[in-house]
Amino acid sequence: MSANENVITHIRDLLGPKGWIGAEDGPAIAPYLREERGLYIGSALGVARPSSADEAAHVVEICAEAGIAVTAQGGNTGLVGGGVPFSGEHPAIVLSSDRLTRIRSIDAANRTITVEAGVILADVQKAAAEAGLLFPLSLGAEGSCRIGGNLSTNAGGVHVLRYGNARDLVLGLEVVLADGRVWDGLRGLRKDNTGYDLKQLFIGAEGTLGIITAATLKLYPRPTVVETALAALPGITEAMELFGRIAEAAGGAVNAYEVMNRFAVDIACRHVEGVRDPFAETHPQYALIELAGQTDGLRETLERVLAQAIDDGVAVDAVIAENIAQGEAFWAIREAIPEAQKREGGSIKHDVSVPLSLVAPFIDKATQALEAVLPGIRPCAFGHAGDGNIHFNISQPQGMDKDAYLEHWQDFNARVHDIVMEMGGSFSAEHGIGRLKRGDMYRYKSDVEIDLMRALKRALDPDGIMNPGKIFQ
Amino acid sequence: MSANENVITHIRDLLGPKGWIGAEDGPAIAPYLREERGLYIGSALGVARPSSADEAAHVVEICAEAGIAVTAQGGNTGLVGGGVPFSGEHPAIVLSSDRLTRIRSIDAANRTITVEAGVILADVQKAAAEAGLLFPLSLGAEGSCRIGGNLSTNAGGVHVLRYGNARDLVLGLEVVLADGRVWDGLRGLRKDNTGYDLKQLFIGAEGTLGIITAATLKLYPRPTVVETALAALPGITEAMELFGRIAEAAGGAVNAYEVMNRFAVDIACRHVEGVRDPFAETHPQYALIELAGQTDGLRETLERVLAQAIDDGVAVDAVIAENIAQGEAFWAIREAIPEAQKREGGSIKHDVSVPLSLVAPFIDKATQALEAVLPGIRPCAFGHAGDGNIHFNISQPQGMDKDAYLEHWQDFNARVHDIVMEMGGSFSAEHGIGRLKRGDMYRYKSDVEIDLMRALKRALDPDGIMNPGKIFQ
Repeated sequence: MSANENVITHIRDLLGPKGWIGAEDGPAIAPYLREERGLYIGSALGVARPSSADEAAHVVEICAEAGIAVTAQGGNTGLVGGGVPFSGEHPAIVLSSDRLTRIRSIDAANRTITVEAGVILADVQKAAAEAGLLFPLSLGAEGSCRIGGNLSTNAGGVHVLRYGNARDLVLGLEVVLADGRVWDGLRGLRKDNTGYDLKQLFIGAEGTLGIITAATLKLYPRPTVVETALAALPGITEAMELFGRIAEAAGGAVNAYEVMNRFAVDIACRHVEGVRDPFAETHPQYALIELAGQTDGLRETLERVLAQAIDDGVAVDAVIAENIAQGEAFWAIREAIPEAQKREGGSIKHDVSVPLSLVAPFIDKATQALEAVLPGIRPCAFGHAGDGNIHFNISQPQGMDKDAYLEHWQDFNARVHDIVMEMGGSFSAEHGIGRLKRGDMYRYKSDVEIDLMRALKRALDPDGIMNPGKIFQ
Repeated sequence: MSANENVITHIRDLLGPKGWIGAEDGPAIAPYLREERGLYIGSALGVARPSSADEAAHVVEICAEAGIAVTAQGGNTGLVGGGVPFSGEHPAIVLSSDRLTRIRSIDAANRTITVEAGVILADVQKAAAEAGLLFPLSLGAEGSCRIGGNLSTNAGGVHVLRYGNARDLVLGLEVVLADGRVWDGLRGLRKDNTGYDLKQLFIGAEGTLGIITAATLKLYPRPTVVETALAALPGITEAMELFGRIAEAAGGAVNAYEVMNRFAVDIACRHVEGVRDPFAETHPQYALIELAGQTDGLRETLERVLAQAIDDGVAVDAVIAENIAQGEAFWAIREAIPEAQKREGGSIKHDVSVPLSLVAPFIDKATQALEAVLPGIRPCAFGHAGDGNIHFNISQPQGMDKDAYLEHWQDFNARVHDIVMEMGGSFSAEHGIGRLKRGDMYRYKSDVEIDLMRALKRALDPDGIMNPGKIFQ
């Protein structure tokens, strides 16, 4: 037997028949090797599917001894190729969390839940709800992404402006290190200043420093009042002005503030069944506003701010949901945009953020820059404007050949990211680096910053077996 | 000239006469060498007082080349000896931030402020207020502590349950590294997933990995409504039950939830002028509740929850402040406790946290454990119960010799911390490790955790010149 075959046998013996999918089993292994959109197809000796943190640690230990790389994978819903194995100089395995699905405990009085890495995000939300509490992380893929992946990528979503990113929801972690040892940092404390805050290292590190196997997460009281409104505005400048007014008037009760330009609303309504524009006329810009809280008065606040905004010419029109179904109908417009964009032809995507004060200038400047290169492009600018995070996706000119359009991808990215970085922004607000954005990282980060990142990588994974080929080139 | 004298000359030439205080200038250097309570008196070649980040970087570079240690110091208000120089094998200087006091910029639309490390916390709060915004970090020493120290120790305070610890308020940092290079991570973004989140390394690291010279901080809308109440309760179990009810009813509007036992209130009223107990009768336990928000209805919420709590026997009595002065009078009781404890004789202190669900069992168990050792001790248990963070300070038995009492310090600490750690708690919730709690750290942390911390220290400060003798033994 070769050395690799020895390792495979060892892991298979450890995990049993459910715990290993070999490379020879093409149909079974294929979904673990493929990035969702087909951007990347990786290769691996197989997929290890441990059913406990101990088993996961043992797998990593075996691989570390044999010099085999380990790519941790959750729901494989990432958008930058971070979860797909690229072994480079090492042969690799995938370590999937899809059997690490226990909810270990819930402490309602402490408002914490301890879950294994493979619990699907929606199931974390559900367990919290059953205890009368809220786990606020919420994003499009929540029905299939797994919490370990959410934490390893520091996921964002629609409630960041109120509850923070995934990082902000973590109190403790359990992590398998590159040598197979387990760091038990599963604490449920709001305050703990006993040495370096090690959990921060592994959150957002995309599995390159260790593998998260479980987490203790913050839960929140469930809001009892939710008010949703859709505002129509003259432009993005006014949409950001309205956000400032809403934030000032409602403070911590602002649950979400999403913007959509006319093109985004238009294609959502045209391409996705059941989605409709509640306004009789068309408008250049829309904002979806959600307030939530425990006390009355939110509706009055929303009415007052929107009425004043219309008086001042900041908004043109607005409708406040009269019931839950109507609120959901507003959200349906927002949620339909990614699907609608697929049906509208080629789309070149940017997941960027800038300071809130520069969202409008960014969209204007980036739109002009791309129109100068390729007249007829149709920017579909939407997303989490309350965080300064815009999905600035550019649909192709009508009638253009899709493949010819997509050849502009690199060039458009460079132009848009240059503008973002000049404005002190981020070229990857939510999605991470993975494989896709490594070039940008080296282009825009200072040497000092790259050196610091490399120093951490060397310190925690000296042999380079944790998800090689990701983040670093 | 000796090598050290060369370095001193070099730094003095760089910084000018205001920028250097030599060891020979006893009265001028003394405050920089002394821990506030006199627990530690350090020694140093002198104090460097750079007036810019560039100067600070240059000082570190000079010291790195000469193998001289650098202890960063802010307002020197820390409680664990973290800011006092202990050079060990290296000669040391203090690098004080007391001339790094510029507010570099404020972006009201982005709700961020960029400040140098030496800005006094109260001045950050003031600058935010002048822009119509709130910087929520608030703690006893805010009139003299400096923001760089707050961040280097991940300070807590009274608003953590709403706004988080100091860590949660940081969007970007500027840091001088151990080799004198500057990492410019001053970003003002709510979402940025481009590689490792390096700022997390330096927050709470007590100057052992690098020196924070500036920070970009989050600001918040100012609450327009504040409601303050003082509740009298049968015991700590009921105080935690009431917290759960308040949190459920008021959600994100809970601004502070502090508990005080009868002894704490009693000595505050007896020893500190102007402090008085608003209740006619005495009660075993008190809770100070602050709700704040933008919308009406908070007072009704508070009234409803307190009335129901009294009906249910969870609370005995309660008074809601009718005006700002009355609210301040309630806070004055809480704020008087540390001073009152000093006047009540010897006090053995613990800054601990446990999960919220275990606050009451912890206080009961720890009290019993110490009473068994030394009958007549008087626990002064107070603090941030909404975070699970109790200042469990034990006043001496009446009439006992103070010095004889204080000889129990180590033993009491060990007993209390053992109980805390069995409950999954923290032996230093707010104050850090510094010099004082290094023994606890090695006693309670796993080998894996200590190894990880050491790996970080080696990676970022291979020559061990950043604040040696702190955190690590």
